[in-house]
Amino acid sequence: MAQTTPNHTQTVSGWAAHDPSGKITPYTFKRRENGKNDVTIKILYCGICHTDLHHVKNDWGITMYPVVPGHEIVGIITKVGSKVTNFKVGDRAGVGCLAATCLDCEYCRDSQENYCDQVQFVYNGVFWDGSITYGGYSEFLVADHRYVVRVPESLPMDAAAPLLCAGITVFSPLKDNNLLDSSPGKRIGVVGLGGLGHIAVKFGKAFGHHVTVISTSPSKEKEAKNRLGADDFILSTDADQMQAKKRTLDFILDTVAAHHSLGPTLELLKVNGTLVVVGAPDKPVDLPSFPLIFGKRVVKGSMIGSIKETQEMMDLCGKHNISCDIEVVSTSEINEALHRLTKNDVKYRFVIDIAGKSSNL
Amino acid sequence: MAQTTPNHTQTVSGWAAHDPSGKITPYTFKRRENGKNDVTIKILYCGICHTDLHHVKNDWGITMYPVVPGHEIVGIITKVGSKVTNFKVGDRAGVGCLAATCLDCEYCRDSQENYCDQVQFVYNGVFWDGSITYGGYSEFLVADHRYVVRVPESLPMDAAAPLLCAGITVFSPLKDNNLLDSSPGKRIGVVGLGGLGHIAVKFGKAFGHHVTVISTSPSKEKEAKNRLGADDFILSTDADQMQAKKRTLDFILDTVAAHHSLGPTLELLKVNGTLVVVGAPDKPVDLPSFPLIFGKRVVKGSMIGSIKETQEMMDLCGKHNISCDIEVVSTSEINEALHRLTKNDVKYRFVIDIAGKSSNL
Repeated sequence: MAQTTPNHTQTVSGWAAHDPSGKITPYTFKRRENGKNDVTIKILYCGICHTDLHHVKNDWGITMYPVVPGHEIVGIITKVGSKVTNFKVGDRAGVGCLAATCLDCEYCRDSQENYCDQVQFVYNGVFWDGSITYGGYSEFLVADHRYVVRVPESLPMDAAAPLLCAGITVFSPLKDNNLLDSSPGKRIGVVGLGGLGHIAVKFGKAFGHHVTVISTSPSKEKEAKNRLGADDFILSTDADQMQAKKRTLDFILDTVAAHHSLGPTLELLKVNGTLVVVGAPDKPVDLPSFPLIFGKRVVKGSMIGSIKETQEMMDLCGKHNISCDIEVVSTSEINEALHRLTKNDVKYRFVIDIAGKSSNL
Repeated sequence: MAQTTPNHTQTVSGWAAHDPSGKITPYTFKRRENGKNDVTIKILYCGICHTDLHHVKNDWGITMYPVVPGHEIVGIITKVGSKVTNFKVGDRAGVGCLAATCLDCEYCRDSQENYCDQVQFVYNGVFWDGSITYGGYSEFLVADHRYVVRVPESLPMDAAAPLLCAGITVFSPLKDNNLLDSSPGKRIGVVGLGGLGHIAVKFGKAFGHHVTVISTSPSKEKEAKNRLGADDFILSTDADQMQAKKRTLDFILDTVAAHHSLGPTLELLKVNGTLVVVGAPDKPVDLPSFPLIFGKRVVKGSMIGSIKETQEMMDLCGKHNISCDIEVVSTSEINEALHRLTKNDVKYRFVIDIAGKSSNL
């Protein structure tokens, strides 16, 4: 499998992991010429997602080294292909997880291309031309315009970056379950208050819902309520609290990527209530049948979102002034940030200042 | 907790288990007088459900001995209370799992009383008056008319009995997922070909769907196709067959009560496809996140159905001539039938000839 193809003529500086030690070092590689359907984006910021950690360490056994991570990418468009009419040089652009899909299956044709079975991701994927994709820990990106969204002027670029993965991952199930600002007043639970969870709380409050944070960590109560505006908090290790809140929630978003049982969480849902799983634990989670069956409850999966949904989210974020709580790090601090991420030591997302001049933007 | 109350003046002969050995012996007990809202039913037939086995052996630790099992009850109404206007003496009636609910919560008011959190079952439950409920392994039943349905004249009483639990358990999720005869042409999978599965295949075919049986047992292929009219069969232990049928089904009904992983089954579903769990394994099933998330798939629970749904099912069964494939046993053969049921040695449901004169009916 070729890493590059003959039209990969542009030299780009980036940062890559070269083996399962996961250590990130500077890496110079090639990107393709800007094609007819492509835009080139000068990358300003790139968020650090948990998925990046899994890839640099080859936790899932699928990493093609060297891997240039990063799928929460924002920047400025510097080149536009001849067939691209919806972007121009100077536009504020965002790229998330998607690099290519088949464009022809029922899901691609129905703006659900994130579920195309030919989907290729923005790093550690294989593009249409056979080249391996390299992500946003790099100075610029060449992207097919069909996988690029606009970033509203009202949003700060750095704090908007994590919307491209963390944001859309929690936005899509809210939209899919009719929980946007057009249908307020539901009782929503968010399990886990990390990169995904904190944005879910912001969306839930912005869209008019009663939001309960569910966490194993007592220290998260103050954070959830005072910093993020959550209405309620349940300490999931406290059986009395869990018992008292049985059958009270309409919808729960489970963002936890560690192994756990869905049973106690399901009990919090009303009859017909829905729990959406967006975390991806390595091992199967336990699904006890009784709380599922006796409450006619629903467990759904959801994976990022389509480009159409991502643009809709961006526009709603612009309207409601929603962005992520971030800690900006320099390119020389990536390894330290990844290490702190393994300990969940971040509120709530690291964002790499790729261009290195955040004060000027 | 009292087993009877002062108005329990009617003596009835039945069959009960008295301890976790699970042995069923004749048992004489009392039922209440026929109240204003009650009907009395002379029981003709009662199906034997796997749940009966769990109760007689106290598998779930909740059995109140002596237990008179049986919740697939059909018979003839012999008394009608003064407030009952929808039944008369001589009517063909059926009673399933429900004996009482609160009648006042949002689920009771919305004809979803099977999900009322005060639900009491037709045996091993506690009725409104504080008495323990005794089921259909008995000569007659006094039932509140709100938990009684009519059995269409076109259906044989013996083969209709298992519709009251096995039937409604698979009918309700078909209705809930818009798969009745008004929406034909879907690709449906049925996991497990037993008491529930065989009726699910009949419903699926009667309602105009393409039905695939999924089983660990190669011998079920002929049965599924030739006897029950299934369109396709997948041997779930054959990885090649499972691989070839990935992303082909719209909906799957999982009737298996043994511990298993939902992962391989989920892979058979198209994107957005739904798997409904109606079996109740003692231990949690394994739910791997990747097939759930990458296919935006849905896992739902479902428990029996409401009385309104049960009547709708009965009427549709009358219209389509759907009843169960049964083996009728006498009251002296109950223990043998329960023993054979532990080995799944029945096609597909035992029904007890309670009145002992089936040839005259």
